[in-house]
Amino acid sequence: MTQLETMGAAAKQAARVLMNAGAKKNEALFAIAKALRENAQTIIDANAVDIENGKAAGLTDSLLDRLKLDENRILGMADGVTQVAAMPDPIGKVLEGRTLPNGLQIEKITVPMGVIGIIYEARPNVTSDAAALCLKAGSAVILRGGKEAINSNKAIAELMRDAVEAAGLPRDCIGLVTDTSRQSATELMQLSDYLDVLIPRGGAGLIKSVVENAKVPVIETGVGNCHVYVDESADLQMAANIIFNAKTSRPSVCNAIETVLVHEAIAEKALPLMKAELDKKNVEIRGCEKTRAILGDCVVPATENDYAIEFLDYILAVKVVKDIDEALDHIAKYSTGHSESIITSDYNAANKFTAGVDSAAVYVNASTRFTDGGEFGLGAEIGISTQKLHARGPMGLNELTSMKFIIRGCGQIR
Amino acid sequence: MTQLETMGAAAKQAARVLMNAGAKKNEALFAIAKALRENAQTIIDANAVDIENGKAAGLTDSLLDRLKLDENRILGMADGVTQVAAMPDPIGKVLEGRTLPNGLQIEKITVPMGVIGIIYEARPNVTSDAAALCLKAGSAVILRGGKEAINSNKAIAELMRDAVEAAGLPRDCIGLVTDTSRQSATELMQLSDYLDVLIPRGGAGLIKSVVENAKVPVIETGVGNCHVYVDESADLQMAANIIFNAKTSRPSVCNAIETVLVHEAIAEKALPLMKAELDKKNVEIRGCEKTRAILGDCVVPATENDYAIEFLDYILAVKVVKDIDEALDHIAKYSTGHSESIITSDYNAANKFTAGVDSAAVYVNASTRFTDGGEFGLGAEIGISTQKLHARGPMGLNELTSMKFIIRGCGQIR
Repeated sequence: MTQLETMGAAAKQAARVLMNAGAKKNEALFAIAKALRENAQTIIDANAVDIENGKAAGLTDSLLDRLKLDENRILGMADGVTQVAAMPDPIGKVLEGRTLPNGLQIEKITVPMGVIGIIYEARPNVTSDAAALCLKAGSAVILRGGKEAINSNKAIAELMRDAVEAAGLPRDCIGLVTDTSRQSATELMQLSDYLDVLIPRGGAGLIKSVVENAKVPVIETGVGNCHVYVDESADLQMAANIIFNAKTSRPSVCNAIETVLVHEAIAEKALPLMKAELDKKNVEIRGCEKTRAILGDCVVPATENDYAIEFLDYILAVKVVKDIDEALDHIAKYSTGHSESIITSDYNAANKFTAGVDSAAVYVNASTRFTDGGEFGLGAEIGISTQKLHARGPMGLNELTSMKFIIRGCGQIR
Repeated sequence: MTQLETMGAAAKQAARVLMNAGAKKNEALFAIAKALRENAQTIIDANAVDIENGKAAGLTDSLLDRLKLDENRILGMADGVTQVAAMPDPIGKVLEGRTLPNGLQIEKITVPMGVIGIIYEARPNVTSDAAALCLKAGSAVILRGGKEAINSNKAIAELMRDAVEAAGLPRDCIGLVTDTSRQSATELMQLSDYLDVLIPRGGAGLIKSVVENAKVPVIETGVGNCHVYVDESADLQMAANIIFNAKTSRPSVCNAIETVLVHEAIAEKALPLMKAELDKKNVEIRGCEKTRAILGDCVVPATENDYAIEFLDYILAVKVVKDIDEALDHIAKYSTGHSESIITSDYNAANKFTAGVDSAAVYVNASTRFTDGGEFGLGAEIGISTQKLHARGPMGLNELTSMKFIIRGCGQIR
């Protein structure tokens, strides 16, 4: 057996205990939160090694900042775990039920997934966030973080495993893959005898690799080529404010917008208003010919590729469209199905947009930046699904569960 | 573009129309039912070619019977389509919703999957059954049946495409892959630019190939290594009746049982009662040493493999176990997660079994043969999911849908 197969088998055993662990799950979560708080220095020391290695490897300042853990951030991680403990148990809910004419009593209830794999990148806080959500949802988890954070992740995982064991649950409820080679990631994607679902959290490259290689069920997350369409009837200052917020409040995240589509009838008024806002943060605009005719040569000519990619930066693609139908066609062609918004005061246009856009979150007159488990009131999230199977949009505890049918009879045969 | 990519692109376009097709979906379904009824002879003629080819290729009588279409079976297919039309529309249901403190009104509604791929084997009635369910659920479908039924499938698909077009929807709402090579199946499994989900319907070999090759989201169906556990407290005649029904009423289907586990305290009484029933259909028993000690040499010694596979035949594996824990361990090791049943009169044993067995359907004192969309009251089914993501157990119209969030605001930014 490989290291991963051994981990998989251990996780599967642990999952059988977790399946019916009831209140012990919360005891383990409280123990984890306590361990994180009381051993913050151990984590900080391990993290210092990662930071040093990261500097030597030439990581950018923004990556180093994501990697960095200080006491405040660790207390934040502990609070996150405590908040998960406070949420209602998602397991054992009766979703539906009926008595059949032959007397069989049938009910469909929520049950744990079993073993969940999570592949993620630099930020070490995901290690405790993801483990807490999976544990609360009754599943064992196999974590595979990025190599940049391996020392931090090891320290956090060992503290969590000790805490889980002290609370009377198998320590293999939480496993960390310590081999951070590309090969180990691929092996995890193919661990079909042990993994019930794999959730990759990261950029387009990771998601693509998972789609190419995975042999286990996957929930794709987080790639967001998001759009705002400014309709003919829009309140143009509202449009400019929403575009500014959706582009610049945090350009590196998946719910930030990458392209604005503007109805040609109001483009001459809308574009300068929008540009005045975007100039405050020096956003580079890449536009179509009509956009350049209105805003001038400061606009870089947009290529086909500019409409297809996530900039995740202070760059925005802009296109003037003939009408809402052209906007819907453009979105159908280029969107990754994450979040899109129409700015309009026309009832029919709003309906046409919400019905015609096939994305996880479709907005009218609001910023796409709200696509988030916390903002939606779902509590902590494990990621934002951009696929249509099982979960779509922000995934909280409920989306980490499966279901089964229980049928009670008194000798019925068919 | 390959033939399949062209089909995929056409299906994706058709799916955009279907997404909001409303009542036109039922018009198309009624038109399909009418076309099947009125052109039964065309289908029978095409089917005759398949039957002739099948005989020449040496298909077994039971396979030829599954392949065969006569007027009654075609009327049955048409009735099936009409029944799907009569079901409530699964699209546009509000699943949940709330108003956030910032005034955003958020709701989660059911939407179509988009493009659904179905890979299936010999029976040509699946062609109309699956197409009708997908159409009603607002999704375009790409069908890929077995080569044995290709002439029947072509005739049925062309009639359906004409009918859909006559009802005012794109004919590419339904597509049939006419290349029945293994290569075309693999290409369909990897058509990730166009397929939102792939549902394989068939035996263990097909499912394995899909798990190995698929690059699109998959719902696994239909492999059932199902168990009955006879508890110490069981009504032994009830146990014998249920075992006889679950094994012999239709041995070739996925919800038939393959293994019986018997508590050692009642094995001496239970096994002869069970055998007396099974002998009526000459069921071969493959048993452990203890089973053989009780039932004698007529029992074939069971190998490890006998507990692992689906016989799909008049063969049953039997094992005497020490207690319910050993039964649960055996099921955790060998079950494919389809259907398992405990026969017991002990309240605690019933609870322990329903909580401890991680399968799509867990029964107390009833035959596993009830795991079926029609029997469960879900209406027509597209298959029985044995995975934990998205759908588990019998899948009806609701399981063929996805969801999205619609968020209505008045200028909110984050």
